[in-house]
Amino acid sequence: MIFASDNWAGVAPAILNAIAREADRYGNAYGESPIDKAVEARFSEIFEREVAVFFLGTGSAANALALASVNKPGGAVFCHRDSHIVEDECGGVEYLTGGARLIGVDGAAGKIDPKRLRAAIARFAPGFVHSGQPMAVSLTQMSEAGTVYSLEEIRTLTAVARERELPVHMDGARFANALVALNVSPAEMTWKSGVDVLSFGGTKNGCMGAEALVFFDPAMARDAPFLRKRAGQLFSKSRFIAAQFDAYLKDGLWLELARHGNAMAERLRAELTAMAAARLAWPTQGNEVFAVLREDDAARLRQSGAVFYDWAEPQGAELKLHDTESLVRLVTSFATRADDVERFLADLRSAEAPESLSAPVRPGRVRD
Amino acid sequence: MIFASDNWAGVAPAILNAIAREADRYGNAYGESPIDKAVEARFSEIFEREVAVFFLGTGSAANALALASVNKPGGAVFCHRDSHIVEDECGGVEYLTGGARLIGVDGAAGKIDPKRLRAAIARFAPGFVHSGQPMAVSLTQMSEAGTVYSLEEIRTLTAVARERELPVHMDGARFANALVALNVSPAEMTWKSGVDVLSFGGTKNGCMGAEALVFFDPAMARDAPFLRKRAGQLFSKSRFIAAQFDAYLKDGLWLELARHGNAMAERLRAELTAMAAARLAWPTQGNEVFAVLREDDAARLRQSGAVFYDWAEPQGAELKLHDTESLVRLVTSFATRADDVERFLADLRSAEAPESLSAPVRPGRVRD
Amino acid sequence: MIFASDNWAGVAPAILNAIAREADRYGNAYGESPIDKAVEARFSEIFEREVAVFFLGTGSAANALALASVNKPGGAVFCHRDSHIVEDECGGVEYLTGGARLIGVDGAAGKIDPKRLRAAIARFAPGFVHSGQPMAVSLTQMSEAGTVYSLEEIRTLTAVARERELPVHMDGARFANALVALNVSPAEMTWKSGVDVLSFGGTKNGCMGAEALVFFDPAMARDAPFLRKRAGQLFSKSRFIAAQFDAYLKDGLWLELARHGNAMAERLRAELTAMAAARLAWPTQGNEVFAVLREDDAARLRQSGAVFYDWAEPQGAELKLHDTESLVRLVTSFATRADDVERFLADLRSAEAPESLSAPVRPGRVRD
Amino acid sequence: MIFASDNWAGVAPAILNAIAREADRYGNAYGESPIDKAVEARFSEIFEREVAVFFLGTGSAANALALASVNKPGGAVFCHRDSHIVEDECGGVEYLTGGARLIGVDGAAGKIDPKRLRAAIARFAPGFVHSGQPMAVSLTQMSEAGTVYSLEEIRTLTAVARERELPVHMDGARFANALVALNVSPAEMTWKSGVDVLSFGGTKNGCMGAEALVFFDPAMARDAPFLRKRAGQLFSKSRFIAAQFDAYLKDGLWLELARHGNAMAERLRAELTAMAAARLAWPTQGNEVFAVLREDDAARLRQSGAVFYDWAEPQGAELKLHDTESLVRLVTSFATRADDVERFLADLRSAEAPESLSAPVRPGRVRD
Repeated sequence: MIFASDNWAGVAPAILNAIAREADRYGNAYGESPIDKAVEARFSEIFEREVAVFFLGTGSAANALALASVNKPGGAVFCHRDSHIVEDECGGVEYLTGGARLIGVDGAAGKIDPKRLRAAIARFAPGFVHSGQPMAVSLTQMSEAGTVYSLEEIRTLTAVARERELPVHMDGARFANALVALNVSPAEMTWKSGVDVLSFGGTKNGCMGAEALVFFDPAMARDAPFLRKRAGQLFSKSRFIAAQFDAYLKDGLWLELARHGNAMAERLRAELTAMAAARLAWPTQGNEVFAVLREDDAARLRQSGAVFYDWAEPQGAELKLHDTESLVRLVTSFATRADDVERFLADLRSAEAPESLSAPVRPGRVRD
Repeated sequence: MIFASDNWAGVAPAILNAIAREADRYGNAYGESPIDKAVEARFSEIFEREVAVFFLGTGSAANALALASVNKPGGAVFCHRDSHIVEDECGGVEYLTGGARLIGVDGAAGKIDPKRLRAAIARFAPGFVHSGQPMAVSLTQMSEAGTVYSLEEIRTLTAVARERELPVHMDGARFANALVALNVSPAEMTWKSGVDVLSFGGTKNGCMGAEALVFFDPAMARDAPFLRKRAGQLFSKSRFIAAQFDAYLKDGLWLELARHGNAMAERLRAELTAMAAARLAWPTQGNEVFAVLREDDAARLRQSGAVFYDWAEPQGAELKLHDTESLVRLVTSFATRADDVERFLADLRSAEAPESLSAPVRPGRVRD
Repeated sequence: MIFASDNWAGVAPAILNAIAREADRYGNAYGESPIDKAVEARFSEIFEREVAVFFLGTGSAANALALASVNKPGGAVFCHRDSHIVEDECGGVEYLTGGARLIGVDGAAGKIDPKRLRAAIARFAPGFVHSGQPMAVSLTQMSEAGTVYSLEEIRTLTAVARERELPVHMDGARFANALVALNVSPAEMTWKSGVDVLSFGGTKNGCMGAEALVFFDPAMARDAPFLRKRAGQLFSKSRFIAAQFDAYLKDGLWLELARHGNAMAERLRAELTAMAAARLAWPTQGNEVFAVLREDDAARLRQSGAVFYDWAEPQGAELKLHDTESLVRLVTSFATRADDVERFLADLRSAEAPESLSAPVRPGRVRD
Repeated sequence: MIFASDNWAGVAPAILNAIAREADRYGNAYGESPIDKAVEARFSEIFEREVAVFFLGTGSAANALALASVNKPGGAVFCHRDSHIVEDECGGVEYLTGGARLIGVDGAAGKIDPKRLRAAIARFAPGFVHSGQPMAVSLTQMSEAGTVYSLEEIRTLTAVARERELPVHMDGARFANALVALNVSPAEMTWKSGVDVLSFGGTKNGCMGAEALVFFDPAMARDAPFLRKRAGQLFSKSRFIAAQFDAYLKDGLWLELARHGNAMAERLRAELTAMAAARLAWPTQGNEVFAVLREDDAARLRQSGAVFYDWAEPQGAELKLHDTESLVRLVTSFATRADDVERFLADLRSAEAPESLSAPVRPGRVRD
């Protein structure tokens, strides 16, 4: 009953097979092999236009290098206050841009409020050197609160960015989960809605370690090969990232994996909503359920072997917890089994839980 | 007949199996899983003392973060003029240290000359702020010229570093190849000889992508967890790096893989030395042979399907080539088959080679 | 009637004389002249302990290098939300630290609220690598709202910092104004109250351009000479900064200059408080008056030749303005003449103002 | 008899007067005052085209920000091996560019050899990501060896840079000395000869602290206002830098000051050349004389009160010293008095020198 994170899961079998095939042969290093090139071309197909794509090892690197590629001195990046780049990357964006600043913008359910975004940008008067200068807007799709921006919401935010000619980055660590939730095309969810550069994540959805930085205008990627190499993110055996993506993107595997994860979360959501013992913090739209449980229920579930994180109470007034309640995050994935979900739900329903060895509990705010 | 680089090879079967085992189960993310912890402990056994170890995705990252962990403002790192950090990492050390400078020191056959090292350091008068300040010495074992420092040579250089209290970094991208060449213990080749921090490479010797940053004094590693995370080098599925190392370090597999690579190079070396048509640029001590061939021979071998790089003529007076000669690098690995070696040698010996489709030839200096 | 900023003023005559004396002779460059050394020693007298002091050209450089000297990877600096380093230095701290993050903490009247500070620091769990790590607390004395922390308030904040072993920086751009407001010793307002490193400003209080970075524990300054030089802040004719400080610190000139500035502000404050046409946004404690005026009054004063800035409405709920009101900042200095103050007050009192050519008006938020 | 450096001199009287005038009045801060704007316009006149100019406090800052304004990831800057940015700025360029690398190119008498420059650039194959990428060429006029590039030499080097579309920076810390040595116009020595961005130094030639960063194509300066501010180089009382330049550039004062310095050096050169006891290391073309003296003569001169630096023996084979010889640098300036020159020469000629108190001697390589 592992609901800790989708990156606690292993690797989808088809993806492991692709790695195994590649393991047994030679291939050019540093992204120059045939499979690297083929998968790069595949991204252009997937996104219905010529894109420049760079394989990377981590989503943090993708985010930081995306923003480094639009860097400005004194640059400010506008993103949600609770976004991964703010909360969980140890200042990676600041470091790899040499000092850009993240401006956390508020908004309900993990989504940037467009009016607050405009107001935050407006605090930077054009040419007023003391403040620094706006350099980008960064959205997270799906968001850190498990919600998904609609196409209209994305377009509203990118339009606000365009008012000041700011490029828009999308952190797509859970891109596939959002995509199948919206049931739209990759193009619609990105460049057709005003997104310029994308962190395309595979790791959380069944890959071993496969992330890509995607530029929808290849001209924006002029420095990206050097940015990637200089950051220690050009893998000599890059073709093993390519091989993962090859299988991931073949015959819609990536969408199928995401649909399974989302369906498991939907089952949790539906049942939790029906229980008196739980309520949802935010709408569940992808593969994450944020639930408010009684502390003793949470403890009991953990004793039964469930693994999940307590989640930090959000800073604003959005959600109020009673003293005896916990906000917990339940993440599903391609690897989640339906019977684990049912067992979790049954445990929560039951007044009495079996004694068990204590499962690992990590208190407090832990994110991934 | 791939002699392009050891990172063109695939993955050793036992290592692939370890990945496959891990793929089928859950595990804590971000380096917290049992296998991560077990393999960290294994490094302490291998090195016969408590070490602090950090798994990373690339050797460039390991080198840069090793030096970032001993960073100083205006800091100068002394290394061989032709070292990988100087020639092949796109300024990664400079970037990830926020501006350290690499001082290329000369020395025959890819090894730093101790007198020149002392002289280079001496140009930085203590406290003379205009020059900046020495911050580290970095050795490459085995070197970029395919040679191996003896223990005595390492100790001589680390003693020079100690005169100015400089920490010593070892770039061990081909650590195992050097180790079996010297037939000494990992401890002897590192901390017992004055090395403080090591980039321990697995990727070139049969792993898919597994590098480790090893501190022999854990106190030096205080900031390393943050350095790793901030650089986008803390992998969520870090346990797949750990799994690779688990298999790699089990039952001496790593040494066995390296011995095979070295033996293949030794076979090349021995035969090339005996031919009129070739001579060695530098002694072959590990898994790299640097040979001077006639240009037409090199072209003919490539037509027969051999893949190898031309190598840049070194900057000093060390090696002089005739106009009709090429310096080429032949790299062997765990995956090199003896019959490919024999075929290569036979092709070189034969006056006439079969016509074939042109194999990919990348002219000029290419390193990895 | 210039109330725009204290850095719009010129140079106090005694300080200009000191420059002139120095102009006519030779002296060692780069901070090695006798006057540099003498003034460095003078700082130790002023602060009643041995300090390490570094002359610099700007307060922004002092702040950034102060924080660079306590830098950590993923480091977070806690400061007031409206502090100069957040609002007015174009990301200089982030840049010169290579990516530290500023965490803006709230608090009334420009002063950090100790409880909020503790809560902000507490969000960084020790060793939790994803968040980064706390690295310093930075106070501004006097604050950007024209208020002055009492010794007790400083001690409360530095005690909070000590709970997590964080060094404390004080941005003392208006150090002298705060000091005479409190009527305490420099030692009491700094190290005796838990401050570790100080940006000591002279420029706003009658110098031409003289700032100093002061470490109360010289051991903390080990890298500071290199940090200063590397940042382009070691002036070849550094002795002209030293000469300014020499005169500034002689016979209490600096305190006298600050007292005059404060007295002029006190006169403004007292009269504005008594008028129906104005109210104070925050208490006036030094040489800055933040007043809420009617927009038409502000316009009229400007037509009469008064120069002052509109000030951005603070972000919190602290201060509410009517649609027809402006928040303005009136800054006095050593150069403010009493009759300019009286003329300004008279103009504000009068119902009708003389027509005049339009004086320069810079709308919106402008700080210094 | 101060020949230590031109930055040991004070301030020319007309420049001090300009400061004094400004001291007695108010003026807008941060470069917005009328005199700032007027002097900016004056630079366009001086250079015979519209330039973008930024006042700064130090030459190191000017050099670093010039190169930061043409920054590229993995960027390499080609400059003379002994240039100030390599030898004497504590890694400031590397720091403020976030990791650019300086490639020291050899060349006689402090001047870059064009063939070596082309060869050094050629080592960076276009698009070969491992090496990084060329980003600029930086010339020093006059050079660190006291020599002056002819217009033809400048044009040859800038043409080499143009072959790879590299912008050209000129470090003009001693711009005026070079200019009067060549007797050409500022435009001819810069943009008409292919220079794109200039560090224009006033400090060494009679200013107190006045440096300017000049872009000959204002479009290149788009980010420069933010670069300057972010680096802590936008002075609140910037008008005092402007005032220095105002006097400096008025009625040819700057050229007159430089001519005096050069004439004093020419006198030294002419007499030293005629003596058996001395020889020149390099041609004297501006205000610096590099002389080889007998060590005992150098010691004796210092005992007589002469102050000058020993200079590091250059790294190449250019100049060989006997064991009993010293390479010394004698720098003249606007402040050098003819009778000090004559006394120095007389002392050197005389076999016996008067006993005196030992004057400060700083051994070894010290530069400025």
